[in-house]
Amino acid sequence: MTDMLDQYRVAEEPYYRPVADEVALYEAAYAAKMPVMLKGPTGCGKTRFVEHMAWRLGKPLVTVACNEDMTASDIVGRFLLDAEGTRWQDGPLAFAARHGAICYLDEIVEARQDTTVVIHPLTDNRRALPLEKKGEILRAHEDFHLVISYNPGYQSLMKDLKQSTKQRFGALDFSYPEHATEVEIVTHEAGIDATEAGKLVSIAERARNLKGHGLDEGISTRMLIHAGSLMARGIEAPAACRMALVRPITDDPDMRDALDAAVATYF
Amino acid sequence: MTDMLDQYRVAEEPYYRPVADEVALYEAAYAAKMPVMLKGPTGCGKTRFVEHMAWRLGKPLVTVACNEDMTASDIVGRFLLDAEGTRWQDGPLAFAARHGAICYLDEIVEARQDTTVVIHPLTDNRRALPLEKKGEILRAHEDFHLVISYNPGYQSLMKDLKQSTKQRFGALDFSYPEHATEVEIVTHEAGIDATEAGKLVSIAERARNLKGHGLDEGISTRMLIHAGSLMARGIEAPAACRMALVRPITDDPDMRDALDAAVATYF
Amino acid sequence: MTDMLDQYRVAEEPYYRPVADEVALYEAAYAAKMPVMLKGPTGCGKTRFVEHMAWRLGKPLVTVACNEDMTASDIVGRFLLDAEGTRWQDGPLAFAARHGAICYLDEIVEARQDTTVVIHPLTDNRRALPLEKKGEILRAHEDFHLVISYNPGYQSLMKDLKQSTKQRFGALDFSYPEHATEVEIVTHEAGIDATEAGKLVSIAERARNLKGHGLDEGISTRMLIHAGSLMARGIEAPAACRMALVRPITDDPDMRDALDAAVATYF
Amino acid sequence: MTDMLDQYRVAEEPYYRPVADEVALYEAAYAAKMPVMLKGPTGCGKTRFVEHMAWRLGKPLVTVACNEDMTASDIVGRFLLDAEGTRWQDGPLAFAARHGAICYLDEIVEARQDTTVVIHPLTDNRRALPLEKKGEILRAHEDFHLVISYNPGYQSLMKDLKQSTKQRFGALDFSYPEHATEVEIVTHEAGIDATEAGKLVSIAERARNLKGHGLDEGISTRMLIHAGSLMARGIEAPAACRMALVRPITDDPDMRDALDAAVATYF
Amino acid sequence: MTDMLDQYRVAEEPYYRPVADEVALYEAAYAAKMPVMLKGPTGCGKTRFVEHMAWRLGKPLVTVACNEDMTASDIVGRFLLDAEGTRWQDGPLAFAARHGAICYLDEIVEARQDTTVVIHPLTDNRRALPLEKKGEILRAHEDFHLVISYNPGYQSLMKDLKQSTKQRFGALDFSYPEHATEVEIVTHEAGIDATEAGKLVSIAERARNLKGHGLDEGISTRMLIHAGSLMARGIEAPAACRMALVRPITDDPDMRDALDAAVATYF
Amino acid sequence: MTDMLDQYRVAEEPYYRPVADEVALYEAAYAAKMPVMLKGPTGCGKTRFVEHMAWRLGKPLVTVACNEDMTASDIVGRFLLDAEGTRWQDGPLAFAARHGAICYLDEIVEARQDTTVVIHPLTDNRRALPLEKKGEILRAHEDFHLVISYNPGYQSLMKDLKQSTKQRFGALDFSYPEHATEVEIVTHEAGIDATEAGKLVSIAERARNLKGHGLDEGISTRMLIHAGSLMARGIEAPAACRMALVRPITDDPDMRDALDAAVATYF
Repeated sequence: MTDMLDQYRVAEEPYYRPVADEVALYEAAYAAKMPVMLKGPTGCGKTRFVEHMAWRLGKPLVTVACNEDMTASDIVGRFLLDAEGTRWQDGPLAFAARHGAICYLDEIVEARQDTTVVIHPLTDNRRALPLEKKGEILRAHEDFHLVISYNPGYQSLMKDLKQSTKQRFGALDFSYPEHATEVEIVTHEAGIDATEAGKLVSIAERARNLKGHGLDEGISTRMLIHAGSLMARGIEAPAACRMALVRPITDDPDMRDALDAAVATYF
Repeated sequence: MTDMLDQYRVAEEPYYRPVADEVALYEAAYAAKMPVMLKGPTGCGKTRFVEHMAWRLGKPLVTVACNEDMTASDIVGRFLLDAEGTRWQDGPLAFAARHGAICYLDEIVEARQDTTVVIHPLTDNRRALPLEKKGEILRAHEDFHLVISYNPGYQSLMKDLKQSTKQRFGALDFSYPEHATEVEIVTHEAGIDATEAGKLVSIAERARNLKGHGLDEGISTRMLIHAGSLMARGIEAPAACRMALVRPITDDPDMRDALDAAVATYF
Repeated sequence: MTDMLDQYRVAEEPYYRPVADEVALYEAAYAAKMPVMLKGPTGCGKTRFVEHMAWRLGKPLVTVACNEDMTASDIVGRFLLDAEGTRWQDGPLAFAARHGAICYLDEIVEARQDTTVVIHPLTDNRRALPLEKKGEILRAHEDFHLVISYNPGYQSLMKDLKQSTKQRFGALDFSYPEHATEVEIVTHEAGIDATEAGKLVSIAERARNLKGHGLDEGISTRMLIHAGSLMARGIEAPAACRMALVRPITDDPDMRDALDAAVATYF
Repeated sequence: MTDMLDQYRVAEEPYYRPVADEVALYEAAYAAKMPVMLKGPTGCGKTRFVEHMAWRLGKPLVTVACNEDMTASDIVGRFLLDAEGTRWQDGPLAFAARHGAICYLDEIVEARQDTTVVIHPLTDNRRALPLEKKGEILRAHEDFHLVISYNPGYQSLMKDLKQSTKQRFGALDFSYPEHATEVEIVTHEAGIDATEAGKLVSIAERARNLKGHGLDEGISTRMLIHAGSLMARGIEAPAACRMALVRPITDDPDMRDALDAAVATYF
Repeated sequence: MTDMLDQYRVAEEPYYRPVADEVALYEAAYAAKMPVMLKGPTGCGKTRFVEHMAWRLGKPLVTVACNEDMTASDIVGRFLLDAEGTRWQDGPLAFAARHGAICYLDEIVEARQDTTVVIHPLTDNRRALPLEKKGEILRAHEDFHLVISYNPGYQSLMKDLKQSTKQRFGALDFSYPEHATEVEIVTHEAGIDATEAGKLVSIAERARNLKGHGLDEGISTRMLIHAGSLMARGIEAPAACRMALVRPITDDPDMRDALDAAVATYF
Repeated sequence: MTDMLDQYRVAEEPYYRPVADEVALYEAAYAAKMPVMLKGPTGCGKTRFVEHMAWRLGKPLVTVACNEDMTASDIVGRFLLDAEGTRWQDGPLAFAARHGAICYLDEIVEARQDTTVVIHPLTDNRRALPLEKKGEILRAHEDFHLVISYNPGYQSLMKDLKQSTKQRFGALDFSYPEHATEVEIVTHEAGIDATEAGKLVSIAERARNLKGHGLDEGISTRMLIHAGSLMARGIEAPAACRMALVRPITDDPDMRDALDAAVATYF
C-alpha cells in the first residue's frame, strides 16, 4: 500500500509562480481542515497550483478528472470479484481519505450529482465517508484534504453545484498571470527567449479580449507554451501560432482572421 | 454486528444550541414512533440536531446522504456474491430498522422515487420493511426511528415529495439561529472572540437579506465558522471573509461587490 | 415455505370501520375471482381495508409498494446465483399466486408499464402467470386474489393505467370517513378523548375544503392520529397540530396561516 | 420438453362465438403460413379467438403480453448461468418456432422496436430465427404460426408498427359482438338469465356511443361478465354495475353520472 | 466451424427477376471490394436480391436485422462466460469477416450509431475489424463483402446515416418491378393464374399512387403474394384482398374505402 | 505482447501526397510531445495521413473509431473475468500509452464526455493515465503520441469538444487535395488513366460547390476512387458515377439531377 501511495507523491517541485496570497490561504485552509474550491478558466494553472501545494506540504496527491458518466462508486470504491471471491477496492476518494492524501476533484461540476453529494460527510466536522456497501464508516486521516475545481464560465442552469455543496468550501479565484509573470513562465517552460515569449503573451492578451465576443475562452498559458515549444523545434513563429493558438480554438473564419492578424502584428 | 453498530454511536455530546421546543417535540415523536421531517435551509443545523438527539436518546445514528442516482436497493440491501455464493447485506435503512438505530435520510427529495416509496411501510403502523429479494418481512426494532430532511427552497415541480409520503411525517421547521445564539456558536466552534464572531454574524445577516435578490441561499452558520477558523489561524479578516463567505456562493460581480462592501463595513 | 407464508398472515383483527357496502362487494368479488381496484386519496384507509379483508377471509396478504423503478422481474421473480448455481426465486406476485395469498399492488400506476402488463393473464379467465424465464406457466391457486390501489388525484397524462388494464378490475371508491366515524377512529387509535378527537376532525374538515385551492391533498385520518398521539404524550394541542397537520403538507406562508387559524379556532 | 410443450396446449374448447368469416380466413392464413394480425379494441375477444383457433387446429399456444421494457432477448432467448456453466434457454418465440406452436404476441406495439424487428425473418419465406448469441439459425417448425394483436385506438405517432412490419401480416378486424351474440355470451359466462344479460348489454351499447366523447374506450364484454358475476352472487344490479362497469373506467363526475343514468334506465 | 458456415449458405437458387443492370454492378463492386448500399421501399426485393447474389457468387450470407437496441457488441462479438472461464464469440459481422461471407446489415439506419461507426475500418482499404476487447485486429477474408440496406422514406432528421458512413458505399436503387415482371412474380410465388395476378398488380399500382397522400407506403409485391396465396386456398378474392392488402396498412376509414373500391374495380 | 504490438505496425508505406507543411508540423509536435488534432471533412485523407506519419516515424498505430456508446472503460481498460479470476486488460489508449504507440481517436466528438475527459492527464506535462480501477498511474511511454480527429462541419451545440479539451492540442487543417494532386491519387489508387481520373475530379469539384446548397458534404477522394475502380472493372463511366458518386450521398431528386448533369458533362 505504501508503494501505491508513493505513486501519488509529487517527486519534484512543480514550477509554480504565485500570483497573490493563494499559498498562505491554502495553508491556513489546510490547517483548519477546510475544503477548498479553485475557480477559474481552463489552462490558468489550477492543477499546477494543487501539485505545487501537495509538494510544499509533502502530501500525496490523488487527482480525479470528473466527468458526467462518473458515479459515486467510481470515487468511493466497489467490490471486485477475483479468484477468492469479492474484494473491496477503495476508489480514489476513499484511498485519499484513508491514507491522508490530498484529493483533487477536477471539474467536479461535470460529475453526476451522486458524486457531489457523497463528499458531504467528508467536508464537515464529521470528516467521514460512509462506505455503505462495505458497512464501514471511514474516518478521514488527519492529513486528508479535499480540493475541487470548477470553471464558472461553464456554469449553466443544468449543471451547477448545489448551494449545500458550495457552502462547504472556501474558494480561491484563479485567472491568467500578469504579463511579466506569464512571459517568465513561457520562457521557462518552452525554452525560448523572453522576447519571443513576450510576443506570444501579447497575442494571448489580445485574444483574451475576444472572450465572449466570438471566443468561448481566451488563449491559455498552456497554449503559449505549446506555440513556444514548436518554435524551439524550428517551426516558424506564424506556423507555430496557427497550429497551437488559432486552429485549436475556433473554426469561425472571421475569428481566425482576427487571430491571424494578431499573430501577424507581432511576428 | 455489535462492533458495526458501535460505529454508528455518537460518542461525545455534539454541541447544539436549541432554538425553540424542537427537543421536546422530537422526544414526543420518538416516543409515539412518529417519523419526523426536518425542514430548513442548508447549513442551519439540521444534521447537528439529529446527531444531538441520537446522543441524547442514546441510540446509534445511521445517516444517508440521498442523491438522484440512489436506488431503493442502495438503502434496503442487496445480495453480494462472495466465495461461498451469495450473501445478503442489509442496506443502511434495513440495518437501522433491524438493530434499532435512528435512520436519517438527508435531502430525501434528491433520491429517486423508489427510495421514497420503499420507506412507506416503515412509517405507518406496520413498521415493517419487506425485503422482497430476500423473502423477509423485516419488523422494525422497538427503538428504530426514521428522520428525513429537506430544503423547501429546492422544491421544484419536478422534484417534490409525494403527498402520500409527506403525510406520514411530523415536521419541524429549522432556520438560522438568533444573533446572540449564532455568535455563541461561532465563538465556540471557530475559536475566536465574541466581538469578531459578532461581526461575522452581522455580515451574514446582511447577506441573508439578499436571498432571492441575487443569492440562492444566505450565508450559513457553517460558513461563518469557516471564516472564523481562518482568522484564528492568522488570516486577515477581509481575506478570510472573501475566501469563506463571498467567493464560494456567487460569481456575479455585482453580488460580490455587495458582499465585499458588507465585509468592509465591519472589518 | 409455510413459515414464509405465515409471515404474510394478518395475526390480529386490524381495526376497521366500514363506511358503506364495501365489505360485501369485496367478498362477492373475491368469490367471483374478480380482481379489485381501490380508488381514493392518500391516508383514507385503503391499505387498512385490504388488511381487514385478508384477516376476515383468513388469507395471507402480500403487499407491494409500487414505484417507477420497479420492473416486472421485481414482482414476478428471478434467478439468483448461489453456491449451487442459479436458483429461481418467486417474486411477491408469483409467491401470492402460487400459495393462494391476496396480492395488493399499492399505487400500481407508479410502476413501469411492464409491471401492469404482466398481471393481465392473472386477471382474466386464464388466471395464469407465465414465468417465461423459468419456462413455467404458473396457474394461480384457488385462493389467490389480486387487489390494486390508485389515487385518481395523481392521474396525469403521462401516468395512467391503460384501459386494457382498468377493464380487468371491479372498482371500489374510498374517501375520508364521516365525522362521527372519524372521531371514533382517532379516539381509538391515538388514545385521546372524543372531545379532543372531535376538534381534530373539525380542523381536518376545514382543511379538506382547501384541496384544489392551495393544497394538493386534504389532511388525512392518519395525520389526525399523529396529532392526537403527540397530545397524548403531553404536547400542547397547537404545537401538536403544527407539527403533525400543518408543517408536513405545505410550505406556503398563506396556506400555513389559514391552517394555523383553523387550529386556533378549536384549541 | 414434451411436458413443457403440453403446458401450452389448450385442454378444453374455449367458448367462442364467431362473428363473421374470421375462422375460415385464419385457417387459410395458417395453411399459407401467412402471419396474422388481430386488430380491435380491448376486451372484444381477440385473445379468446386465438385460444379457440389453437384448440381447433390442435396446436400449442404460447402467449406473450408485450410491454415497453421487453427486449428481443426476452422473446428470443438467452444464456443462463448455472452450476455447469452457461446454458441456452429458448425464449417464448424461439420455443414456439422450434416446437411448432402458435406464438401470440399480444399488443406488440407496446414492445421495443428490437422485438418487432426480430420477428421479420420468421415472417417471410425464410421462416428462420437467427439466434445470434447461440450461433444458430433456427428454422421454424412446419406447424409454427405467428399471430400479433394491436389496438388501433392506441396508435400514436410515437408508437406504431413500422410499415416494413405491418406488410408482413394479413389482418383481421375485431369489434364488439352484435346484441344477440353478446347477450348469449354474458348469459353463458356469468351465469345469469338472458333478460338480465340483455339489460347489461344495452347499458354497454349506450356507453360505447360515448367513446371519443369523454370515454377512451367503451365497456367491454369482459366487464359485462364481471357485472353479471357479481349479480349471480347476490349483489344488487345497480351496485354490481357501479363496481364492474362504471367505477373502473372513469373518474370524471359527469361521465359517471351519465353512466349511472344509463344503469338506472335498465335496473 | 465449417458446419456453422454451412448454415449460412444459400442452398437453392432464390427466385429473382433482375430489373436493370443491378447484377453486373453488384458483381463489379464485389470484385472491387467496394461495400454496397441497397436503397428502396419495404418489400420490393432488396433482401431477395442479396440472397440471389450470395447464391450466384457461391458465398455464405449472414443477415442481421438491425434495430435501435442493437449495440456494436451484438455484431462484433463478446466474451461469454462458460464452465472453463470466458470464451470469445464472434458476432455476425466478425464471423462473416473472418470466414469470408457476405454480411448484410438490413435497415442499418435503425441501429445505434456505434454499430455504424464500427463498420468503418472494414469499408476502406484497411478491411480490418479491431476486436478491441479481444486485443485482435481481424483482417477481413478475401471473400468478405459488406452490404447494407436502407429505406430513404424512413430517413428523419434524428435517424440518418452519417455522411462519413454513406461515402464508404456504392449505392443501388430498388423499386417495385414493372407490371409484367410483377405479374410473373406473383403468379410464380402464389400459385395463381396470370389473370388473377394481373388484377392484384393493378390494384397495387393504384394504391402506390396514394403513397404520400394518406398511405405511408404502397402495397408491396410481398403483400400481393399473400393475397394470391389466400385465393389459392379458396378464399374469395375480395376477402383475400381485404385481409392481405387493405387491413394491414391502414386504419383510416377513408383510405380503406378508397382501397376497397380499387379492389372492387378488378374483382 | 510484442506480437500484439506488431499487429499495430504499419508494414508498408501508405500512399500519401502531402499538401502543405503538415508533415514537418506533425514531426515537430511529435518531438515536443504536443497532442495533435486533425480537422477536416470526411474522406479527405486524415486517417491516411496518420498512417503515413506512423510509418514515417516507425511507431505502431492504434486507431479507435469513436462513437456515442463508447465509454471511458472501452479505451482505458477493464477487468475481465477468466478461469483464474479477474485479469486486467488494457484498452487501446492504455495499450498505446504503455507501449509507446501513436493512439488515433477518430471523430472523438462522437464519444461520450467521459472519454474526452479521460485523456486530459495524458495531454499535459503529467503524461499519465490513472487506471483507477486497477490502482495504477500509468506513465506514458516516451514514444506515445495522441492524435484526434474531428469534422468541424459536424459540430453542433450538443456535441462539441470542451474548450478545456481543445486547448490541449495543436491543430492541423485538412481539405480536399488540389486538382493535379487528386488526379494523381485517383489514377494511382483506382488503376485508370489520368484523363478518366481528371474527369472524375472535375465532377467532384462541381459537387463540392453544392456543399451547403443541398449537399451536406462534397464528393470525397475516396468516392472518386470507388467510381474509378468500377470503371477499371468494365462498368460504363455514367453507371459507375451513379453508383459510386451520386446515389450514396443524396436521395433528393433535384440534387440527383444536378449531379447526373455534372456527370453527363464529362462522360
